[in-house]
Amino acid sequence: MKKHMPRKRTLEKKPAAPGSSVAARLRINNPLWGVHAVEAAWRNPARTVHALYATSQGLEELNKALSRAGSAALSFSSAGVPQAKGGGPRIVCVDRAGLDRTLPRGAVHQGIALDCDPLEDVFLRDLVIAAAHRPRAVFLMLDQVTDPHNVGAILRSACAFGASGVIMQKRHAPDLTGSAGGLLAKTACGAVEHVPVVYETNLTRALETLQEAGFFAIGLDERGEDIATCAVPDRCVLVLGAEGPGLRRLIKEQCDTLARLPMKGPMPSINVSNAAAVALYALAGK
Amino acid sequence: MKKHMPRKRTLEKKPAAPGSSVAARLRINNPLWGVHAVEAAWRNPARTVHALYATSQGLEELNKALSRAGSAALSFSSAGVPQAKGGGPRIVCVDRAGLDRTLPRGAVHQGIALDCDPLEDVFLRDLVIAAAHRPRAVFLMLDQVTDPHNVGAILRSACAFGASGVIMQKRHAPDLTGSAGGLLAKTACGAVEHVPVVYETNLTRALETLQEAGFFAIGLDERGEDIATCAVPDRCVLVLGAEGPGLRRLIKEQCDTLARLPMKGPMPSINVSNAAAVALYALAGK
Repeated sequence: MKKHMPRKRTLEKKPAAPGSSVAARLRINNPLWGVHAVEAAWRNPARTVHALYATSQGLEELNKALSRAGSAALSFSSAGVPQAKGGGPRIVCVDRAGLDRTLPRGAVHQGIALDCDPLEDVFLRDLVIAAAHRPRAVFLMLDQVTDPHNVGAILRSACAFGASGVIMQKRHAPDLTGSAGGLLAKTACGAVEHVPVVYETNLTRALETLQEAGFFAIGLDERGEDIATCAVPDRCVLVLGAEGPGLRRLIKEQCDTLARLPMKGPMPSINVSNAAAVALYALAGK
Repeated sequence: MKKHMPRKRTLEKKPAAPGSSVAARLRINNPLWGVHAVEAAWRNPARTVHALYATSQGLEELNKALSRAGSAALSFSSAGVPQAKGGGPRIVCVDRAGLDRTLPRGAVHQGIALDCDPLEDVFLRDLVIAAAHRPRAVFLMLDQVTDPHNVGAILRSACAFGASGVIMQKRHAPDLTGSAGGLLAKTACGAVEHVPVVYETNLTRALETLQEAGFFAIGLDERGEDIATCAVPDRCVLVLGAEGPGLRRLIKEQCDTLARLPMKGPMPSINVSNAAAVALYALAGK
């Protein structure tokens, strides 16, 4: 488990006395926030964590979550002095206002934030190689789904329904780092630590690569066949477009089949993360 | 179609000259915003609309949506002078900043807002009577799901999958009016105009009433049987609790059966609106 030593520049002002609140504006290069997102990142050996900032209540909630997951409880270390996890990252007591000022406006931080490095990049070939060892693999490809809330919820569903990876476009998709990444990770409730995410420049080409590797591409489209009756091989990639425009033409043409969710109501259209969850459930049950 | 005459007090300052932007802060008692929410409310004969505030681009987008739905296009009326819809509500040209200032902070208004009355209250007995004429009816009950984004997305899915009504608690649920109601309606993309929503003081008692009327109550709970194999009679009510706490004990005990979504991944938990969508899909397919 690689954890960096704390870096002094994570705080603008000099470290506060042990146990006191850090009222100054904190500087977090790559923040994660929210109990579930922080808990999952803290327990992920692949994450390099620099510091944990928490209010007393935030740390209490985090400890409850860690305890449910069988991990040891944390306590505030003297600021600047590595203490937890055998010389690991600092755990700094802050107040709610300090987090409010530091994190993106409106971030529902629940009194807890992590300063950590982004996860290492994952490539399409890594997904294909990892899938080769599994009897069954479903990937999810998102074509220009841009809202971090939606993508976060989709990642969470992908994780819950056992998808083996999510593929997005390099442009027109929220990043896993920075403000959008924090928001995405918060909504994903820790799923970013479990589901590999691949960013590709050209999704049509990525689809082609997956097809060459034996994956069957199912595009979600209202003109497709009922997803309940559509063939689902052991290796497939489910492709979803943005609400409104749907799948772009070239991507749609590259799909092996198109499937639709059977909706009979007066407004046959649902939120994209809900559509992804339903489609993943429908495919998982086959 | 009952549409009120415009009321002068919807604007703080005197009406602007025809075609000009209203830069002053608007006063909207019960606002709806966003193209889909406004389009659906505008076309709903049960809505009493007082005024429509739009930027040029907002009106253009609204007209596209109305045209897709087969409704006539709108144009800016002289402020204060009823013009559209045969003496109906005013259509006032505003600028984006005016809407930003008037609507709740962060409202994604897409350049369009409606000043309208809330829909008339619906009662549980109305739902039961309406359902009596249908061969099949699924109601959705939400036990303390509080986030308007989630409830909005759930309403949208309920509408798409043909649910006949949504029942929520009077407390611990977002209202259909005010800021939360506007946010809910925006996320629901017009579904609030189609799906009747009932607020009940005591959900356990409401469940009992529905059961006496022949409805089978299915509570979503991780300890239930697989929803794919659970019995679904023609009249049922699907009951969902909040993320985390889940269904409250009394509600759970009142359910006729408990069902779970089959999740095999490392984090078997999904967003509540995604869970509702999956459960509604699973029940609709039976």
